[in-house]
Amino acid sequence: MKHLIVYAHPNPRSFNNAIKETIVNTLKNKGHEVEVRDLYALGFEPVLSGSDFETFQSGNMPSDIQAEQEHIKNADVITFIYPIWWTGLPAILKGYIDRVFAYGFAYSVDEQGGYVKHLTGKKGLIINTTGAPTEFYDQVGMTNSLKQTTDTGILDFVGIEPLHHQFFGAVPTVDDATRKEMLVEVEKLINEKF
Amino acid sequence: MKHLIVYAHPNPRSFNNAIKETIVNTLKNKGHEVEVRDLYALGFEPVLSGSDFETFQSGNMPSDIQAEQEHIKNADVITFIYPIWWTGLPAILKGYIDRVFAYGFAYSVDEQGGYVKHLTGKKGLIINTTGAPTEFYDQVGMTNSLKQTTDTGILDFVGIEPLHHQFFGAVPTVDDATRKEMLVEVEKLINEKF
Repeated sequence: MKHLIVYAHPNPRSFNNAIKETIVNTLKNKGHEVEVRDLYALGFEPVLSGSDFETFQSGNMPSDIQAEQEHIKNADVITFIYPIWWTGLPAILKGYIDRVFAYGFAYSVDEQGGYVKHLTGKKGLIINTTGAPTEFYDQVGMTNSLKQTTDTGILDFVGIEPLHHQFFGAVPTVDDATRKEMLVEVEKLINEKF
Repeated sequence: MKHLIVYAHPNPRSFNNAIKETIVNTLKNKGHEVEVRDLYALGFEPVLSGSDFETFQSGNMPSDIQAEQEHIKNADVITFIYPIWWTGLPAILKGYIDRVFAYGFAYSVDEQGGYVKHLTGKKGLIINTTGAPTEFYDQVGMTNSLKQTTDTGILDFVGIEPLHHQFFGAVPTVDDATRKEMLVEVEKLINEKF
């Protein structure tokens, strides 16, 4: 299988990076093809501009968007790895969605005004870290809100089937042993799903 | 009262711009002070970098962040006007939150590990446009998810009291008369609240 990993964290020593490395290694050990797009390392431009809109309509996308769309086209599975900041995506990743999941590429509207999903057949996985404990987010309904605004509002909207959404809570405050257990969980998840 | 308007839309002819102009005019007619931060016009840098984190900890913020924090400090009411893209904030506005609502400025953690809200006493208003009809978002629970990930996850987290969150649905497809009624609603809302 062909895997695309879209990764967004500014710190190469972060736990998010450890998650990414664990996933890449586990997939490669199983013989999968893996492509990583590290948005911070790429210096990805996240601001959807007025001129982007015009190119979406003419079908003549900017080259940086085209490059990311090619990676998506080639992938069977897309895994997003990022920290939850302010109950949402880091801006650099939000801008990747705003720009790369463009009208005409990821979805369109047919003549009857119905939505057409363009990325059906692909599967999606989301791995998040949060500062808040997972139990707290579960209790107050924030876990559901986070799932609805990503699995439903982004992946499913373009036809990517959400396979799983994993949250690792209280990451800044848990001890090293707990973090190691989390990485074992990541490995187990990848082994189960693929 | 001192009002800060944080506005994020790339198109000066957008309905979001008409909402912004209506709010500014209504507030000024009532004698309020109004400051507008148009993030696209400012070319605001939305990507929270590793070096930003270090400056948050040292208390020595980059000058663009400091400037926005001064506007927030001076405001009694902060109104956010933006289109919902992919069930979230446009990247330029998400990055404004990621960078300007910094640790130490907007919140902190005390010695017992408890969160401290730094922006209590201020009030917040959010005005959104969506492509989806409001009734659909209400039915599927998306309206609640959008409120929880902004009013709760951003405003209330730093102590800003969410006054109201207004959604205008199906904006790209409704007719001009409906859009005009929406602007009348905006004016009424501002007159009621302030």
